[in-house]
Amino acid sequence: MAITAQIVKELREKTGAGMMDCKKALGETDGDFEAAVKLLREKGVAKAAKREGRATAEGVIATYVHPGDKLGVLVEVNCETDFVARTEKFQEFARDIAMHIAAINPLFVTRDEVDQDSLEKEREIYRQQALNDGKPEKIIDKIVDGRLEKYYSEIVLLEQPFVKDNDQTVEGLLKEASATLGENVVIKRFSRFRLGE
Amino acid sequence: MAITAQIVKELREKTGAGMMDCKKALGETDGDFEAAVKLLREKGVAKAAKREGRATAEGVIATYVHPGDKLGVLVEVNCETDFVARTEKFQEFARDIAMHIAAINPLFVTRDEVDQDSLEKEREIYRQQALNDGKPEKIIDKIVDGRLEKYYSEIVLLEQPFVKDNDQTVEGLLKEASATLGENVVIKRFSRFRLGE
Repeated sequence: MAITAQIVKELREKTGAGMMDCKKALGETDGDFEAAVKLLREKGVAKAAKREGRATAEGVIATYVHPGDKLGVLVEVNCETDFVARTEKFQEFARDIAMHIAAINPLFVTRDEVDQDSLEKEREIYRQQALNDGKPEKIIDKIVDGRLEKYYSEIVLLEQPFVKDNDQTVEGLLKEASATLGENVVIKRFSRFRLGE
Repeated sequence: MAITAQIVKELREKTGAGMMDCKKALGETDGDFEAAVKLLREKGVAKAAKREGRATAEGVIATYVHPGDKLGVLVEVNCETDFVARTEKFQEFARDIAMHIAAINPLFVTRDEVDQDSLEKEREIYRQQALNDGKPEKIIDKIVDGRLEKYYSEIVLLEQPFVKDNDQTVEGLLKEASATLGENVVIKRFSRFRLGE
């Protein structure tokens, strides 16, 4: 593997070791990044605690704490430029999302994140419900699919009706914000703590 | 298994189903709580989205967002009574912890949470470092243990020097707060988002 200036730079950022050490480590490990990190650690020239990777995306970290301090949300919303990240419109969007998460309690940002095990369990329950209701076997798959769509709209943030305007989904709100701001906007991740949960 | 009033109550809270439905489900599943939840779901009398469990611990959810909105922390700090949770002293402690986490970037609250795989990897690196430094084999375990202690103090919140007063650890600060407030105080969990990470 070729040892490019880019990979040396990344190794320096990751380990805090000097350029010559990094080049040498990459040479010895035939350009294997992770092996080079390990080697530098073993040689004692890299720091024990990993340095934080350089932030690349723009945007904001927003929080919402419900009055009484028993429920709080942390959310990362990305955009393309710091210019947009500083606009009131973008920051208001991020705060709205944090408040929505506090109120509605989604479990995932997108449906891609829902784990297959949970899905299979839900499917099985819906199938059993439909059978108990005496539905004919040939339409059961369709019923299960329909209920699964409903399930997504309950647990997936982007598919939930927005708490301040039930006529649009969070995804609709996001697209609107994106169009107004002229940049791609992404809700990247969130954390929601309720006291004692 | 005996079907107590307590378990019926819990099943009602968990599923939102009526008392008679819950009793019946528990009867049919021989008192198995999870099986009863599943049965109620299948019968369609329980809600699809899980209800939130009742909060038992007292305390607060605190946040800290670093100026510029690129770094934020969410933390849950527990105490025994809501009376103490509302005191300025307790709330200041929670805010201090959130700020410390933002500044120092711990990975775990206690050393019990550190996963064994990471530990083994660290051990192996320290061993290799010591061998490379030409240390005699018989003292290597001791050196590895020593470096591991240092590693803990870098990544475990309670063992880190407190950011506003390096002379004491976060655990020391916590014990002090606990003594002043007259209640057991626990840092339960935290989440730390840095933009683009």
